[in-house]
Amino acid sequence: MRKKNINASDVAKFSGVSQSTVSRVFTPGANVSEKTRRRVLQAANELGYHPNAIARGLITQKTNMIGIAMGDVKNPFYAEILGKFSYGLRTKGYHVLFVNTDTTDIQGEEVSQFLEYNVDGVIITDALLSSSVVTRFLENDIPVVLFNRYIEDCPCSIVCCDNILGGTKIGEHFLNTGHQRLAFIAGKRNTSTSKDREKGFREALRQKDLEPLLEFGEYTYHGGYAAAVRLLQMEQRPDGIFCANDIMALGALDAAKQLGIKVPDDVSIIGFDDIGMSAWPPYSLTTWQQPVDFMIQAAIDILIQEIDDSAQEPQHRLIQGGLIARNSVQLRTT
Amino acid sequence: MRKKNINASDVAKFSGVSQSTVSRVFTPGANVSEKTRRRVLQAANELGYHPNAIARGLITQKTNMIGIAMGDVKNPFYAEILGKFSYGLRTKGYHVLFVNTDTTDIQGEEVSQFLEYNVDGVIITDALLSSSVVTRFLENDIPVVLFNRYIEDCPCSIVCCDNILGGTKIGEHFLNTGHQRLAFIAGKRNTSTSKDREKGFREALRQKDLEPLLEFGEYTYHGGYAAAVRLLQMEQRPDGIFCANDIMALGALDAAKQLGIKVPDDVSIIGFDDIGMSAWPPYSLTTWQQPVDFMIQAAIDILIQEIDDSAQEPQHRLIQGGLIARNSVQLRTT
Repeated sequence: MRKKNINASDVAKFSGVSQSTVSRVFTPGANVSEKTRRRVLQAANELGYHPNAIARGLITQKTNMIGIAMGDVKNPFYAEILGKFSYGLRTKGYHVLFVNTDTTDIQGEEVSQFLEYNVDGVIITDALLSSSVVTRFLENDIPVVLFNRYIEDCPCSIVCCDNILGGTKIGEHFLNTGHQRLAFIAGKRNTSTSKDREKGFREALRQKDLEPLLEFGEYTYHGGYAAAVRLLQMEQRPDGIFCANDIMALGALDAAKQLGIKVPDDVSIIGFDDIGMSAWPPYSLTTWQQPVDFMIQAAIDILIQEIDDSAQEPQHRLIQGGLIARNSVQLRTT
Repeated sequence: MRKKNINASDVAKFSGVSQSTVSRVFTPGANVSEKTRRRVLQAANELGYHPNAIARGLITQKTNMIGIAMGDVKNPFYAEILGKFSYGLRTKGYHVLFVNTDTTDIQGEEVSQFLEYNVDGVIITDALLSSSVVTRFLENDIPVVLFNRYIEDCPCSIVCCDNILGGTKIGEHFLNTGHQRLAFIAGKRNTSTSKDREKGFREALRQKDLEPLLEFGEYTYHGGYAAAVRLLQMEQRPDGIFCANDIMALGALDAAKQLGIKVPDDVSIIGFDDIGMSAWPPYSLTTWQQPVDFMIQAAIDILIQEIDDSAQEPQHRLIQGGLIARNSVQLRTT
């Protein structure tokens, strides 16, 4: 039998306070003296009472749940982000309703789930979504923050690393270190992250009238490996490869090793993300660091502002990163 | 303004059916003709109606939410498992309330969260918990499945790889391939996974009157790296190292490389888990494969059985794995 039939009135009787005092103790931010609070919590503990968040949610119209949709939890970059969102939201009193979208598109099913559970807000990372999906949330007054996804004219808030800037700086770094034949390994087609990194990279190269070779690596280790093999077996192989994320760059480094091509002596490789593995000694990958902690904090702050005040305008926040120079790039002199 | 004030009665009027028919359409498994179902869904769609899972939950005493607590989402093994649980539970109509426990202990706060949201069941992976925590869930009639954690005399269900067997088989494999000076790099102290793998390993070695050297690597890449450095710099270094998980074994492989000690020529290394990276060419790690898909399916099946029938006895399911031989072990002849 569930202990759930112990209710606030039992706790009130047991601790000798009114039922509304018990309610206040379990309502975040409500006014109640420390002494009373402690007495009520002790009684609740002894009786095995816990407030029913769900019943409370029906009254307050707040569930304190945030829906997080994520496409590729196997990518260490996103796995780490999920952990940090969970922790950051918890410190603000929110809980995570998690959806792993096996397809890269956010589908009707995931949307319905978040709507049915009446989440207070939604964070979407590493997954595509159409603006009609965003509209469905907004019509239901559920604010949405896109994390590391950018949609032009999006009616919701966006927190994103400045991918164009990152791509440009990486291109300039290759040029400043004397590279002349450059390649770009793109991630998943149609993702704004890959398209923007490519765009910035092309802009930098255009200043020297250069065009990068182009390959696709699907944002996976094996995709990056295969793309690098194709590039490195060309008659005139590139002397520098920019991979649109780190996990593909690790694949590219291993492909070069397998082919007996030395990094950085024969070819330089730069990634994007700065996942933990990139610092591992056999890789020591030069890469673009996304200021993840800062980005997550910004996303949480914006979402909570919009939850607390539905008149809040959506914000688009582009956050800069920085180049982390390790040992996968060599200064070339001609 | 929220569209939420569109309710089942509006949908009933719009589609010309009774309100109870609308309810049946949105109740999984309820009896309703395909033609009616389609008519109601179309009306719901046009009006922007979605059933309120939370209100429904208060009536049915089912929320269709499963709480998942996970300690180390950064470990690729667990990140992958989370994605698979999310997918597997969704196909059964359940949703994931996710908690990342930054400490390795499941704390009161996480427990309260799951209780407050009235989850139908709880899955705990990669996190320690005391039996008093389990008791709190069971008292509230919320079934718990421990995934890859084993507690003696635990009153809840357990799905676990047979870690003792795995450790024994790895020990025997080292002995059968002529290794004589063996070491064990343990994971986090007090985790049943590490203790059981060590126990099995010791049992195998005892048959030849051998004792392993012992180091600790905290289940992280850097911990495994540092532990391997300590072992490989000993005057009489081991010729075989069993690491209690793969991510430590990858660290150990890199440490050997850094020290100029060849794997497998000078030292053999075996891991445990078979994460994706272990198959990457520069590692090619021999390891113990946990049959993850099968374990996840078993955990979901057991949990749902217990949700549907609270008289169900807890089950302890030990699942065997198998050795995946790659290139990190060499046959030694004396």
